Parts: sequence; structure tokens; C-alpha cells
Amino acid sequence: MFDKNIYTERRQKLKKQVGSGLILLLGNEDSSINFKDNVYPFRQDSNFLYFFGLDRPGLAGVIDIDGDREILFGRDPSIDEIIWIGPQTSSFSGQADTVGVTEVQATDKLGSFLQHTGAKSQAIHFLPPYRPENILKLSAWLGINPAVLKERSSVKLIRAIVAQRSIKSGEEISEIETAVNITGEMHVAAMKGALAGMSEAQVAGMLHGIAVGGGGNLSFSSILTMNGQVLHNHYSTNTLRPGQMILCDCGAENAMHYAGDMTRTFPVSKKFSTVQRELYEVVLSAQEAAAEALTPGKLFRDIHFLAAEKLVDGLKAVGLMKGDPAEAVAAGAHTMFFQCGLGHMMGLDVHDMEDLGEEYVGYTDELKKSKEFGLKSLRLGRALEPGFVVTIEPGLYFIPELMDLRQSEKKFESFIHYDKLQSFRSFGGIRVEEDYVITPSGARLLGRPVPKTADDVEAMR
Amino acid sequence: MFDKNIYTERRQKLKKQVGSGLILLLGNEDSSINFKDNVYPFRQDSNFLYFFGLDRPGLAGVIDIDGDREILFGRDPSIDEIIWIGPQTSSFSGQADTVGVTEVQATDKLGSFLQHTGAKSQAIHFLPPYRPENILKLSAWLGINPAVLKERSSVKLIRAIVAQRSIKSGEEISEIETAVNITGEMHVAAMKGALAGMSEAQVAGMLHGIAVGGGGNLSFSSILTMNGQVLHNHYSTNTLRPGQMILCDCGAENAMHYAGDMTRTFPVSKKFSTVQRELYEVVLSAQEAAAEALTPGKLFRDIHFLAAEKLVDGLKAVGLMKGDPAEAVAAGAHTMFFQCGLGHMMGLDVHDMEDLGEEYVGYTDELKKSKEFGLKSLRLGRALEPGFVVTIEPGLYFIPELMDLRQSEKKFESFIHYDKLQSFRSFGGIRVEEDYVITPSGARLLGRPVPKTADDVEAMR
Repeated sequence: MFDKNIYTERRQKLKKQVGSGLILLLGNEDSSINFKDNVYPFRQDSNFLYFFGLDRPGLAGVIDIDGDREILFGRDPSIDEIIWIGPQTSSFSGQADTVGVTEVQATDKLGSFLQHTGAKSQAIHFLPPYRPENILKLSAWLGINPAVLKERSSVKLIRAIVAQRSIKSGEEISEIETAVNITGEMHVAAMKGALAGMSEAQVAGMLHGIAVGGGGNLSFSSILTMNGQVLHNHYSTNTLRPGQMILCDCGAENAMHYAGDMTRTFPVSKKFSTVQRELYEVVLSAQEAAAEALTPGKLFRDIHFLAAEKLVDGLKAVGLMKGDPAEAVAAGAHTMFFQCGLGHMMGLDVHDMEDLGEEYVGYTDELKKSKEFGLKSLRLGRALEPGFVVTIEPGLYFIPELMDLRQSEKKFESFIHYDKLQSFRSFGGIRVEEDYVITPSGARLLGRPVPKTADDVEAMR
Repeated sequence: MFDKNIYTERRQKLKKQVGSGLILLLGNEDSSINFKDNVYPFRQDSNFLYFFGLDRPGLAGVIDIDGDREILFGRDPSIDEIIWIGPQTSSFSGQADTVGVTEVQATDKLGSFLQHTGAKSQAIHFLPPYRPENILKLSAWLGINPAVLKERSSVKLIRAIVAQRSIKSGEEISEIETAVNITGEMHVAAMKGALAGMSEAQVAGMLHGIAVGGGGNLSFSSILTMNGQVLHNHYSTNTLRPGQMILCDCGAENAMHYAGDMTRTFPVSKKFSTVQRELYEVVLSAQEAAAEALTPGKLFRDIHFLAAEKLVDGLKAVGLMKGDPAEAVAAGAHTMFFQCGLGHMMGLDVHDMEDLGEEYVGYTDELKKSKEFGLKSLRLGRALEPGFVVTIEPGLYFIPELMDLRQSEKKFESFIHYDKLQSFRSFGGIRVEEDYVITPSGARLLGRPVPKTADDVEAMR
């Protein structure tokens, strides 16, 4: 946990920005797997963590701006709970004190508190709930139909939190860097340890073990697959076969829940095939060009386009595309191979603040998110600022269903050599991803470098 | 997946037992971690798996007994979903066919289906929901307040499912045995690999990796701790210290979601200390006596008492207890050291069918669950039948808070040597657990044997 002043200052800043009313930040509950008491690893809500720091289920924080009060709702454990989950290091009020909150109340009083104190307030600001248990609670307390809760959430509160959490402090960068380093260890272990004959799941399991052993957990379910063209394929009991490539996109979150997120693609065999190496280097040069272009003030959307043009350049050299790269990208022809976005913010969430809405996190009133295929998957478009942490992750994905669809639609015929595509139907996918912090003059790679060139990757096999 | 006839027969049997009305079995959804699209590993509902077999989020099964129809609600993926999650091996109706269901409807039609067809039915039988998303859905569809949904669930359906799922078929035993064998590998890896200087989390991570690599996942969050006296302690970044013991209670579920669940306790050093070995052997002899006593017709509660008496016997020899063991157990004095139950059913859930209610799974109209400290944590009390799969897991737990509480209450003074207890305040806890199937003549240990005697455990270190 950070020093208590950090949490106090964050709340002060939030109060000033929201101005009036009552801010309600709900912590998360345990989530049941297959019966109530069999639960997934607990993950606290990131907004609650950011402003109230406590990492236990069943809490809520209230900031009553008008009444100038900060209250944590929770409770002390019973003797039965001490037997089952162990003695707590301090009382609930002692825990609240570690994050600078002096007033505590019992959890079961929150509903009536909101109905009484909340009613006197100018507004109850709450965030769009992404967990159904919090939908149930908010609906019952505030008398709002579950179906419209999201649209009744506070845009003022969302904007204030996005403004604050987008700029990472020095302490946060240092936490993120520990997560990226655990993530790097996972990738080194995968490149060294994934051998033909093993299953994807065995390798994914090994990575999971490293993340847990790092004191936290995975920051998202690992993608470890020979079918890298399927963008969110996870892993299966498929056996690793020589000749195929493994796409490994995984990350750890550290004990403080800051995330890392990296991707490497490497051959099951000792070496890439000629064509695998050729396309790997296309992706790598796009990744490096995009990283090089990171500068405050520049639109991330433009860096996305730059990477897309680099990919088209490379695909022309390989003979899969033709025409002017800038025109191809303007027409969207690159989305045959690069269907998603170049990257996203990263912090307490691997897609940072995605619960608050990409329209607020990645875009502005002036720069709205596109609805076009491809661009609609770009989570971040707006101008970069020092303190932003972003991923850069271009890729090439050969999806037979999409090739067939676009060819049948007669789309992109002036940019794509459809005849040459046929031999790539089972090629798979390649992605290379790193994490960066934006500095006043450019950007800095986060974490210790992990082998990335084709030669360095092959040297790990 | 099993052969389609197995699912068809299970549903036939269920229809006969429930008799009339409409049975609604809701599958599970993905559960969000910190934003909607970052999800925990998907786990299908076990009742849905048992009767409808399909292992994907967002499905529901309806058995209209009066109308003689079986319907699976779901849908085919869109092209966007194919890009992100990959091509499906067959259409939704093709998948339904693999479990013997010929009628499919779109998921978003389920609400109105229940309001129309359901209304004509004698009753809509649903199960007590343990996931908040299913509470929200049921509440909206059936117009029932979330707070009373559980009490409006169908006892008739619960009883029929418990009757069926309690008796494991040959195919199920074989699946459970693969899960127990993966679980055994986890324990061997822990006993071989947990070294002084590592953190609990590192060892837990390694076990997690083996479970995932086995093609499934953990059957529950591993308990791997030097504080074994805290019954549901998981693991921490504590460093393993020579002289302490590690209590490791963990299990895998296999690819079909059948569970394994075992516990071993072993020294961080190469050898147990004298007193650690003495108490380990007390627990082991109770474990073996209880396993030996498993026979159809016998109340599991009586085997629990038998194990408790064995523990008291051993604690008398060590000088911690006194008096007649049967009287001590009748008075509840053993709950100073053994605060929980001897074991539970195991199958598709590690605590099998716990979502349906322990009063139906572990008890009967004649044998009700006790509310007493200790016995209230015994999940299974009723008479054993061939085909039951159960765990046997006695333990000794030295909980300073409980010692102080009972001494201050002047409880159990004729059975406990309170003066001798003081030196055990930081002793920790010991548990030994195995899984068994009840046979017509007794019981059979499931899985390949894993070192269990103090000598055999030490030989692994």
C-alpha cells in the first residue's frame, strides 16, 4: 500500500474536480465459481483501490463533498471468521486509518445512509457498474432499474477520475515496472520452456505459476496459442507442433494490482521459417517505428496509422499488398491483416479504466471513436501526455473467414493480391508488444528488455 | 464430453422424478474481474453441465415436462466474434445435437418464452442462484424480488438432482480419477519443490501451473500455508522458514470439470520435529481409521465422530487432552483442535452440489444438520451409498484466539490440559486428506497413491 497521504491527496483532488454532491465508490465482492463459497481470486475494484487502497471484499467508500466527510463502510471479522480466514492485523477502523480515513460505519448501514444523507445531497455520483452484485446493490439502494443504471452513472465523476488516473505518478510507474518485469520473466520462461510435444495449456500453466509466484496474479487470462490469428484465443490442450509459431500475449499484475502486458511470437522449432521470419520482421519494424514516434502532444490515432502504413509497406515487399500505403490505410485495406488497435492505456487495469468507458479514457469531445471496422477496436486515440502508460502492439493476422468475406465483397482489390493470399490461409498470426511511459520529451520502455529481434528470439529456443 | 445418450438419459430420469411443470437450468456467464471484458476463466454451472453438457457462456436449458420438449437457448457467433474468439467447430444447433437436444432458440427469446409457455405450465422449477447475473435474469423474467429468489427455488427439482448426482456412474468415477491424479502430481511437486527461502505464493503458483497444464484448472483456490491452523488461509508472500510445516490443500478439476481434492502437511526442513511427527501420526491414524470405516449404510456423521475420538486418543497420548474420548467428543471438546467436518461429497464440484444446499446434499428429513460449533461445519452426515464420492480429511489446528476464548469461558476443563496448550500457540495445523468412492462392500481410494506416512513424506523432501 502507498503512504496514507497519497490516498488523502487523491481524494482531495477528486473532491475539487467533482465540486459537489456525494461520491460513492463501491469495492468488489468475492465472485462465486460454481457455488457461493468457492470463489475466484478476489480482485478489488481499481477505482476503489486508487482512492481508498484497502484490498478486501465487501467495502465501500463515500466522499460527501457537501458535508465534508469521508467514510469507509465495512466491518470487523467475527470469531468464526478468525477461525476460517485468520486473525486480521488490525481492526477495520485501524485499516481505514492506514489510508487516511477516520470515519467508519457498518456495511449494512450503507443503504440507509444513501437514502438519508444522500437525499440531502445535490447528487449521488456513482460509476457504471461492471459487476452484477454491484448492479443489484445500487438498484436496491437508489431505486434505479438495473437496465438503466449505467446511463444514470456520473459523467462528471468519470471524467474527474480519468483525468487523475491517466497521469501515472512516480510511485505508480515503479509499481507498473515491477509488474512488467514479472511479465518479462513469464515471456523468457515461455521462449525457453515451450517445446514441441507439450500442450499450449502446459505452457500457459507455467506462466500462470510465475505470475502468482510474483505475489499478484495474471493481469488477464493468457493468450498462448498456435492460432495467433484468433485475436482473443486463450489456450487449449493442442500439442505444440514444429513448423508452427506460438503467439504468447500475457501479463502479470503485481501485489499492488498494477499490470504488465507483453506479447512475443516465436517458432515451435529452433528457427523461424523464411516466410515466418520475413513477416515477423514486418511486425517488429512497425512496432519499433510506433514506439519511436511516441511523443507528448501526438495523437495516438496517428501513431496507429503510422504503424498500419509500416505493415502495408512490409506486406508489399512480401507481395501480399500493392498500391500506396497511405491510401491503403485510408481505405482500411490493412484491416485485412491488422483488424485491431495499436495499443491501450495500462495501469491498475491492463486496459486501464476500461470500466469507465473508452469514449472518456481514449477519446475526447473533439476526437470521437470511429465506428469503422478496425478503428472501432482502437481503444486509445487522443493526444499523449507525459505520465501516460501505453502498450504498442501491432500484428498481422491471417483469418481465412475474413479473407473469404472480403474477397466475396470485392473489397480492397486495388490493394490486396488475393491470389497470393491462398497460401497464407493457415499461416497464423504474429504480434509484438511492449509497454511504455510517455516522458516530457518522448517515451521510455518499461521493464528490463526481453529478447525481441528474430535472432534474439531464436537464441532463446 | 460424454456420449449424447448419457445426457438424454439423465434428462429422462429428471423429468420422471420432477413429474410436471417446466425445468429451467441456467448456464453461467463470464464473470468480470476489473472491467467487463477482462474475465475470470469461464466455469459452467455444474447442473447445466450434468444435464446439457455444453461448456460455453450464455446458455440455458429448458425441459418442458408438460409439453414434452427439451430446448437449448443460445446463438451462433457473429463474424466479429469469429475474428476475436475463432471459428466454432459447429453451429449452435450442431452443438445442441451432441447432447441429444434437437430444439434450439435464441437466448434473447428466453424471457418471453418463460412468460408465455412457462405461464401455461404447472410450475417453473428453478435452482437457487449463486451468481448475481442469474439473480438479475431470474428476477426480471419471473418478476420475483431478488431477495426472495432463493426461497422460491424448487425443492422438488433440488431433491431430484441431488438424488441423481450423488451416485456417480463409472464414466464419472473415471473422470474424477483423472482429476485426482493431476491433484496427486500437484502434491508430489509441492513436497519435492517447496524449499526454505521460497514464498508460499511461488509454490502455490507452481501448483496452479500443473492444474492448468492438466487441461482444466484448480478445483478451488489452493491453500498453501505455514499457518495451517487458519482453515481457509490461502497463500501469501511469506517466506518458507525451516522448522515450520507447510499445509497444502489443493486440487485440480480436469477438462470435464470433475474435481480432485487432497491435503498433505510436510516440514519445510528435511524432517518433522519430534512433536510435529507425533501429532502428524495422530492425524494420519484418524484419517486411516475413518477411511477404513467407510461402508454403505453407515452414517458419515458417525465416521466423523470415530475420527474425532481417534484424535482425542492421540491428543491424550501427547498430554494435551484427558478423560474418556467418547465423552470428550460428545461434549464437543475435540472442537478445540478439530473445528470443522471430516469431509464432503466431491464430483463436478469440489464440495459437490453445495449450491443446492447442504441440508439436501448431506442430510435428510430424519437427520438434520446440527447448529453446534464444529458439527455445523460437517457438510455430510447422512448414510453412505455405493457410488458416493467423499473426502476424508481430519486435522488438528492450534488457534490461539480459540484457546483463549474457551479458557476464558472455562469450557472443556475436564478434557483439556490448558497449561500444556501454551507451548502450542504457534504450532500451526496439520491435515491429511484423500478421496474415496463408496463401493458395495466398502470404499476404494481414488487415484494413484501419494506419499502419506511421515517417513514417506520425509523421503520426498
